[in-house]
Amino acid sequence: MRSMEVWIEFASTYSYLSVSRIGQLAARHGVTLDWQPFFLPPVREHHGLGFPFPEASAKTAYMWRDLERRALRLGIPYRRPAIYPVNSLPAARVALAGKGDGWCQRFTEEAFRLHWTEGRLIGSDDNMRAALGALQLDAERILQIANAPQNKEALKAQTPRAIERGIFGAPSFVIGNELFWGDDRLEEALEWAVLHG
Amino acid sequence: MRSMEVWIEFASTYSYLSVSRIGQLAARHGVTLDWQPFFLPPVREHHGLGFPFPEASAKTAYMWRDLERRALRLGIPYRRPAIYPVNSLPAARVALAGKGDGWCQRFTEEAFRLHWTEGRLIGSDDNMRAALGALQLDAERILQIANAPQNKEALKAQTPRAIERGIFGAPSFVIGNELFWGDDRLEEALEWAVLHG
Repeated sequence: MRSMEVWIEFASTYSYLSVSRIGQLAARHGVTLDWQPFFLPPVREHHGLGFPFPEASAKTAYMWRDLERRALRLGIPYRRPAIYPVNSLPAARVALAGKGDGWCQRFTEEAFRLHWTEGRLIGSDDNMRAALGALQLDAERILQIANAPQNKEALKAQTPRAIERGIFGAPSFVIGNELFWGDDRLEEALEWAVLHG
Repeated sequence: MRSMEVWIEFASTYSYLSVSRIGQLAARHGVTLDWQPFFLPPVREHHGLGFPFPEASAKTAYMWRDLERRALRLGIPYRRPAIYPVNSLPAARVALAGKGDGWCQRFTEEAFRLHWTEGRLIGSDDNMRAALGALQLDAERILQIANAPQNKEALKAQTPRAIERGIFGAPSFVIGNELFWGDDRLEEALEWAVLHG
């Protein structure tokens, strides 16, 4: 079976572009997605890498313009959120809780969509309840599971797994020992999965 | 006339991919290239950005693998140089000296090619003489001009010009107020130049 790991960080701007289109692209390529929700900051800390987009820097100004152009080019709805960066930890926990239940991808897509088109903060309680509600899931019960010690520990355990794969940013895509970083590599990663996954 | 500024840094690995294919791509798009040789380190320093690829980091390991994969995918000859990073300042000076004479692009292409396929250090005297020789230019005379105070000052003057454009990395492509960063944006930049250049 052609399979590819998807390492998405909910606070990552370029991850939005990938999340918006990966479902359709993967289906077209016949590739199964193995979602791996994780929390990027401790991974970057391990590598000695700081926050990539500090406020008021030339690189950050470029990122926003580039993101807007890319969204337009790829036909992805885009409304720049009022707040950046955001706390993504709660969303990563919910997504991980959904991995076993089969709704990780749908939750991720909906949580990103609400953040990037309706101005809801991606890691906020409000946003998560709205996303889970759209999936017709019991938000109350799931938030309890997501915040239980077992799930929190499971998310922490994703950090060494990410590091083991050489991951240092998001989105990242992994097929065997092959790592692809960034939305710009999504198509290339899927083609790799078709040939070697 | 459709025109696009090309900001190449001779020590930048991804710049090699762009330099190798930009001539043909620009011709196909009917875009005139305005080469802007510059020295990236003082620009990054101005922005408070460090060296992007420190030795033995996960990000650097990824860069080499990604570069190799991209070269293969794009059909670009690739042999990883023994030394990295390299001192690119002398090559930038020569390229700038060639801007008025119309051989900036050809020198840049040849200097990169020798570095990335024949293992010659891009900023070395040897490499520059070989590149200028291949263009049937008087290497002795040109190296004198390149290292004269006037040309050194002209290269220094590129730093504030790059900063003014929001440049923080290389390769960068500029059309009017629009900045595109990275080899991954070369096609998009050319399309922009076609529409707005």
